[in-house]
Amino acid sequence: MNTKIDPAKAEFDVVGIGNALVDVLSHEPDELIESLGIPKAAMTLIDEPRSEEIYRLMGPAVEISGGSAANTIVGVAALGGRSEYLGKVKDDQLGHVFLHDIRATGVCYEVPLAPEGPSTGCCLILVTPDAHRTMNTYLGASVHLGPEDVDPNRIARASVLYLEGYLFDPPEAQEAFRVAARYAHEAGRVVSMTLSDSFCVERHHEAFLDFVENHVDLLFANETEIHALYPSTDFEGAVAKLRENVEYAAVTRSEKGSFVFGPDDALNVAAHEVDELIDTTGAGDLYAAGFLHGFSHGADLGVCGHLGSLAAAEVISHIGARPEADLVDLATSLLAK
Amino acid sequence: MNTKIDPAKAEFDVVGIGNALVDVLSHEPDELIESLGIPKAAMTLIDEPRSEEIYRLMGPAVEISGGSAANTIVGVAALGGRSEYLGKVKDDQLGHVFLHDIRATGVCYEVPLAPEGPSTGCCLILVTPDAHRTMNTYLGASVHLGPEDVDPNRIARASVLYLEGYLFDPPEAQEAFRVAARYAHEAGRVVSMTLSDSFCVERHHEAFLDFVENHVDLLFANETEIHALYPSTDFEGAVAKLRENVEYAAVTRSEKGSFVFGPDDALNVAAHEVDELIDTTGAGDLYAAGFLHGFSHGADLGVCGHLGSLAAAEVISHIGARPEADLVDLATSLLAK
Repeated sequence: MNTKIDPAKAEFDVVGIGNALVDVLSHEPDELIESLGIPKAAMTLIDEPRSEEIYRLMGPAVEISGGSAANTIVGVAALGGRSEYLGKVKDDQLGHVFLHDIRATGVCYEVPLAPEGPSTGCCLILVTPDAHRTMNTYLGASVHLGPEDVDPNRIARASVLYLEGYLFDPPEAQEAFRVAARYAHEAGRVVSMTLSDSFCVERHHEAFLDFVENHVDLLFANETEIHALYPSTDFEGAVAKLRENVEYAAVTRSEKGSFVFGPDDALNVAAHEVDELIDTTGAGDLYAAGFLHGFSHGADLGVCGHLGSLAAAEVISHIGARPEADLVDLATSLLAK
Repeated sequence: MNTKIDPAKAEFDVVGIGNALVDVLSHEPDELIESLGIPKAAMTLIDEPRSEEIYRLMGPAVEISGGSAANTIVGVAALGGRSEYLGKVKDDQLGHVFLHDIRATGVCYEVPLAPEGPSTGCCLILVTPDAHRTMNTYLGASVHLGPEDVDPNRIARASVLYLEGYLFDPPEAQEAFRVAARYAHEAGRVVSMTLSDSFCVERHHEAFLDFVENHVDLLFANETEIHALYPSTDFEGAVAKLRENVEYAAVTRSEKGSFVFGPDDALNVAAHEVDELIDTTGAGDLYAAGFLHGFSHGADLGVCGHLGSLAAAEVISHIGARPEADLVDLATSLLAK
């Protein structure tokens, strides 16, 4: 048991805040990414004209609701958890698609649709033959998530608050973020965050460091991201710095599994094998879903990490960043141990 | 060689007319279809309120461009053919998705977007565990395809005109249909049509019979559909009647393959085996694509049918009604024989 959580005291397990996006996925050759001059397998922020330019060059695509924290929150619901999401879409066709899809998974989603302004945000995802995804995000309406959308009662009623690092990009959302962390701590809840992307960490390095040191209890990151947060250190050095700053963390290392620590223990968790790697979109998001589901139920760190590996393995074995398999039975049997 | 076609004389191989729709697909249990009281594995026309009701009950979905004839025309392009599509979408987000996807496959698509009126049409597709699809179509903007959208030059420049039986539902489109057939024959082109759906044939039985007898040179249908066209007959009886009415036909019979005939010959074509049946959406559409690609290149009926079987097998081995595999090499090697 981790002693940080008393799940009996909360109405919800996890409430997440993030950029609400609809993913537009297509299979593309590496040459397109090279000719566009975008960093492969990373997330690049784009404006509307650039989004139109890239879309024009993409092949026939599939639209599917996305958004990093939204994927995580849907994952928590798929594992049987009670979860809520805060993120902004516009009152347009893709906004209604987002709203339908997230509610259809059982997630509570009550943020008012933006009646005007930029259209619902989208992420143009180029999936290359090696199953990697190169993401181009037009934030659209999601930049208008502000402190007024963060209801203190919604934050207070969940065991864990989960924040997406990408939210450091839109300035209004960054403020919503700090407000949410304050509400959570005032209610005695756990504040968790994912670093999201190494380029995003580099863009807002000071703000990230300050936030991690002063507000985060549980951090999610991959290896590249913690090196972006603590430059010029080896893995052990970065982890040592991280342990000075946060109480809990889970660092994912692709096929090497993950390294997780708490105040009293630290351990490596194996990755879960997959038959065929189809599309890595959502791997980190779903790892966080599994981990958070365990953590918000007071599970040991090893069980949390194992749930993370399982959920990640499910999502990389098919196209799209949200789970397809029914994960509830799996989660129930693991949590009963 | 079929002598009906002189491909050298045409700028395009196939021009198709149909209801332009965006598919909204989700995996659902049989119980949902029963509780909705809709006929399984058929296409039901629905109005906007009913579409909202069904959508609300559907799980998280994927949006992907569809429309029966559009899928066929995209299939022709995927096989290396030169194809054009006529169908109506609105100037809204899903209309732009449709426009992007069809153009991205190399299809010529120049019909003006509707500036107002109902939103872009959609087809809510419930995929059950047996891989069957139950379709609920809200025609939306596609009902506004009218005779003014049928440019005589676009019809005259393609070897084969391909018409979707579903177009008998919207009255304006039915008129566009007759106009298109007239232009095609005036230019010495072949008029082909698919019956689309047995319920659709029953809804407009007299109009279908009249159109097949007087305007169609090449008919596509499955067994249920020709029985709907010629009731109270066995398969041989229905085929005999069909031979009196049209010069060429291809009747698909699921795993039994297809039966094809021309003025001088008739033969059975085997189905192409698939490793795993995932989703039958688009099987008939892609059979027509393969057949039309062969036919518009003057191929023998056996080759046409074989191309149809191959294209159908590709599309039922994955989710969605448009081809994923690159079919050009396959088609080229078959046509070279």
